[in-house]
Amino acid sequence: MDLNSDLGEGFGAWRMGDDEAMLDIVTSANIACGFHAGDPGVMRRVCALAVERGVTIGAHVGYRDLAGFGRRALDITPEDLADDVLYQIGALGAFARAAGGRVRYVKPHGALYNTAAVDPDQAAAVVEALRRYEPGLALLCPPGSEMRRQAEKAGITSYAEAFADRAYTPEGRLVSRREPGAVLHEAEAVAERAVGMAATGTVSAVDGQVLTLNPNSLCVHGDTPGAVELARRIRDGLTAAGIRPAPFVPAG
Amino acid sequence: MDLNSDLGEGFGAWRMGDDEAMLDIVTSANIACGFHAGDPGVMRRVCALAVERGVTIGAHVGYRDLAGFGRRALDITPEDLADDVLYQIGALGAFARAAGGRVRYVKPHGALYNTAAVDPDQAAAVVEALRRYEPGLALLCPPGSEMRRQAEKAGITSYAEAFADRAYTPEGRLVSRREPGAVLHEAEAVAERAVGMAATGTVSAVDGQVLTLNPNSLCVHGDTPGAVELARRIRDGLTAAGIRPAPFVPAG
Amino acid sequence: MDLNSDLGEGFGAWRMGDDEAMLDIVTSANIACGFHAGDPGVMRRVCALAVERGVTIGAHVGYRDLAGFGRRALDITPEDLADDVLYQIGALGAFARAAGGRVRYVKPHGALYNTAAVDPDQAAAVVEALRRYEPGLALLCPPGSEMRRQAEKAGITSYAEAFADRAYTPEGRLVSRREPGAVLHEAEAVAERAVGMAATGTVSAVDGQVLTLNPNSLCVHGDTPGAVELARRIRDGLTAAGIRPAPFVPAG
Amino acid sequence: MDLNSDLGEGFGAWRMGDDEAMLDIVTSANIACGFHAGDPGVMRRVCALAVERGVTIGAHVGYRDLAGFGRRALDITPEDLADDVLYQIGALGAFARAAGGRVRYVKPHGALYNTAAVDPDQAAAVVEALRRYEPGLALLCPPGSEMRRQAEKAGITSYAEAFADRAYTPEGRLVSRREPGAVLHEAEAVAERAVGMAATGTVSAVDGQVLTLNPNSLCVHGDTPGAVELARRIRDGLTAAGIRPAPFVPAG
Repeated sequence: MDLNSDLGEGFGAWRMGDDEAMLDIVTSANIACGFHAGDPGVMRRVCALAVERGVTIGAHVGYRDLAGFGRRALDITPEDLADDVLYQIGALGAFARAAGGRVRYVKPHGALYNTAAVDPDQAAAVVEALRRYEPGLALLCPPGSEMRRQAEKAGITSYAEAFADRAYTPEGRLVSRREPGAVLHEAEAVAERAVGMAATGTVSAVDGQVLTLNPNSLCVHGDTPGAVELARRIRDGLTAAGIRPAPFVPAG
Repeated sequence: MDLNSDLGEGFGAWRMGDDEAMLDIVTSANIACGFHAGDPGVMRRVCALAVERGVTIGAHVGYRDLAGFGRRALDITPEDLADDVLYQIGALGAFARAAGGRVRYVKPHGALYNTAAVDPDQAAAVVEALRRYEPGLALLCPPGSEMRRQAEKAGITSYAEAFADRAYTPEGRLVSRREPGAVLHEAEAVAERAVGMAATGTVSAVDGQVLTLNPNSLCVHGDTPGAVELARRIRDGLTAAGIRPAPFVPAG
Repeated sequence: MDLNSDLGEGFGAWRMGDDEAMLDIVTSANIACGFHAGDPGVMRRVCALAVERGVTIGAHVGYRDLAGFGRRALDITPEDLADDVLYQIGALGAFARAAGGRVRYVKPHGALYNTAAVDPDQAAAVVEALRRYEPGLALLCPPGSEMRRQAEKAGITSYAEAFADRAYTPEGRLVSRREPGAVLHEAEAVAERAVGMAATGTVSAVDGQVLTLNPNSLCVHGDTPGAVELARRIRDGLTAAGIRPAPFVPAG
Repeated sequence: MDLNSDLGEGFGAWRMGDDEAMLDIVTSANIACGFHAGDPGVMRRVCALAVERGVTIGAHVGYRDLAGFGRRALDITPEDLADDVLYQIGALGAFARAAGGRVRYVKPHGALYNTAAVDPDQAAAVVEALRRYEPGLALLCPPGSEMRRQAEKAGITSYAEAFADRAYTPEGRLVSRREPGAVLHEAEAVAERAVGMAATGTVSAVDGQVLTLNPNSLCVHGDTPGAVELARRIRDGLTAAGIRPAPFVPAG
């Protein structure tokens, strides 16, 4: 089971999260590419650390919206979106290669993630950018999403991601952050849920129904000291359950 | 003799210059990478046109300064500059490859060009970014500049560029645009000067002294209808003088 | 009848439209404030010219999206939107006052205009920003729009704007630019339509039905030489019909 | 004696410093205006808190350089600089007024502060922006600086600022941060130095020589928990020495 995290989210003088601590925990790093967060210096440092530790590098691509951290839906044309995504992958690719690694996958960030999960046009634009960069590039996205469908259509390999700290609707979607109970805060429960997802491929939806997600990767967060601690606990829980943390695509 | 021009300098809804017309004239295209001008859509379109016409693709890298078009000196650390330059080359590289081409050289833009011509630290930072991207990447820069020295030191191939429409000091530098007579406006004279530079490798400085520049490339402009016309006249002048326009590094 | 136009839409080295020519034609100037277009230098120059010619100054506020020229819908929270709008009005206000004038009204731009026309939350956020800046500030917006309703609710005076070169639905909305026939290109017809709107307060919808818009202002464009010519023709047409061009709020 | 601090330096999702804690300590707040840091939401919140607590509002204006936090010298023309500064003051002014306050002074930030301290053209441009906004606006700047001279020339009131945690050259300038010993880290010593500066108007330069600074304001920092603690200690030290903390210009 892969553990992924959003890293490299500082910008200029501003820091966010503890990239170094998280790179000791995760097996795949979604690295911001400068459009919603991240700057060239951060990208260089996180790529170098990821390569050192054998963590797989992914491009965490977002809308061009530093002020909104890429969390605001943007009604961009698919053509412009494909260009914006390719730009970001290319920029990160230069740092990955300079560090002796490669960008192996792409994960959309924030509002782009949510929109491309359900909008065929934005999903197809993201997939088209991957295809243009390198047909072997993989996509990390929600199970059962429009992104997965578009990736399959285009012959791009996709991997399914689940969130142990988020509630799921009976349809297998994340409950919106605007609704109560969307985010689970109790660390013990989240760690258990993560291990359960990894062991069984399933999770309970808000109505108690059992959902089959079959995730290839679990997303963990590192933006607070508590978050880093929880991520470590999830990793330890997996190991204790005999589930080896390993990237869904190798770093090399 | 190569003819190069600064292309892809639009941004969003704003246009600048006639990229298509210039791509019929030049043999090398310095394509803006989004920091001082250019956006992902412009980069894609200009790369595609360049590949179609066999024009060599260069990364026209600049300071992160859209408001100033990269024309204002920025006291950036060499470490940050190398990161900013690598980011830009990587982004353009993705569009070049998607179009079936490659970035073959780098030319700094505007204030970065002027600073790196004389400042060893900024020059070394630019060269370091090239080296990290791909050791075979070439540098296009002024003859006798600090950039050339740093490139040589790092084992990077550099090519010398001259400007037919600019006055030169006896030391072989461009007369500052702030001084009278810095820019030559008479088309006939500029075209003749270009052919002379290509044929003899020399040009007259402001004091009449003959300078040996031995340029590998002449820079031509395309931001006004008159500029495009002049660029065409220079190309025709070279051809008439038996000098075949050809890129200093092949496009492929 | 007022004639308004979107002015000051250059940015840095990029120009757009002929601000000077348009300031001889219009009675109200919607001046971009730096978020979707416009920079401090452009704002200063256009404010100075407007004051010189007695043209009323309006703040043309948009989403923070230079790359998309503010034409892409952004799912921003009302709280953030009110802050972004107030920031822009304040910035323009400094230039207006320095030139001896004042910002007298606000007109949202592009995607913000379209969204706030129908979305009560974004409309209320725009109105809230006006109210915070100065309760006497007016709003220029479509007749029958959500913006008008929110302005009325908040005790803010609003004025109705119509477009002579755009087709209207039977419901009195603009036909989307994505549909054929949305924009009328025939100058003679547009000029006639403008005079008709001003004289009768009505216009024919796409289905032939007569709509009552009762506009206080007609929007004219200046981004091409043809557009400037058409704007002048509309002004002359109004004058010939005995309708004096005059701002809906005085400049002073 | 006034205590000032740089506040409102977050941007979007990124936080910096503890604005609330510092607003309980300082008497004047230099609020970032969006060019090097700060966004409209931060500006609104900090203005509201400042007004609530009777803290005087100042515009902390900087170069347009979010990526460099305004700490990199930019070779901007005086004309463009005056426009950029006026834009920032105007934007902050809208939030100050909406909160029931006013911008009472301007303090340049970072590289602009350092450049305008010695460069007559950039100093004059800053002063010109103040004058255009409102002739009564004050300038906060180093004693004996070019900014003070230009302010005096233009009839603008300026106030002198000193730094208790920075070493001074015998000429009365700050030792560059690039040199060892430029920043004093020992809290006790810094607090004592602050009280000494306030009580006597003098400070010891690095060579032991006594400098007369006669500061109207001491700058204190709040970007780390330790910094907030030190700021509080300085305030307490002043009070204990019978020096009442009070703004150099009243908030109202």
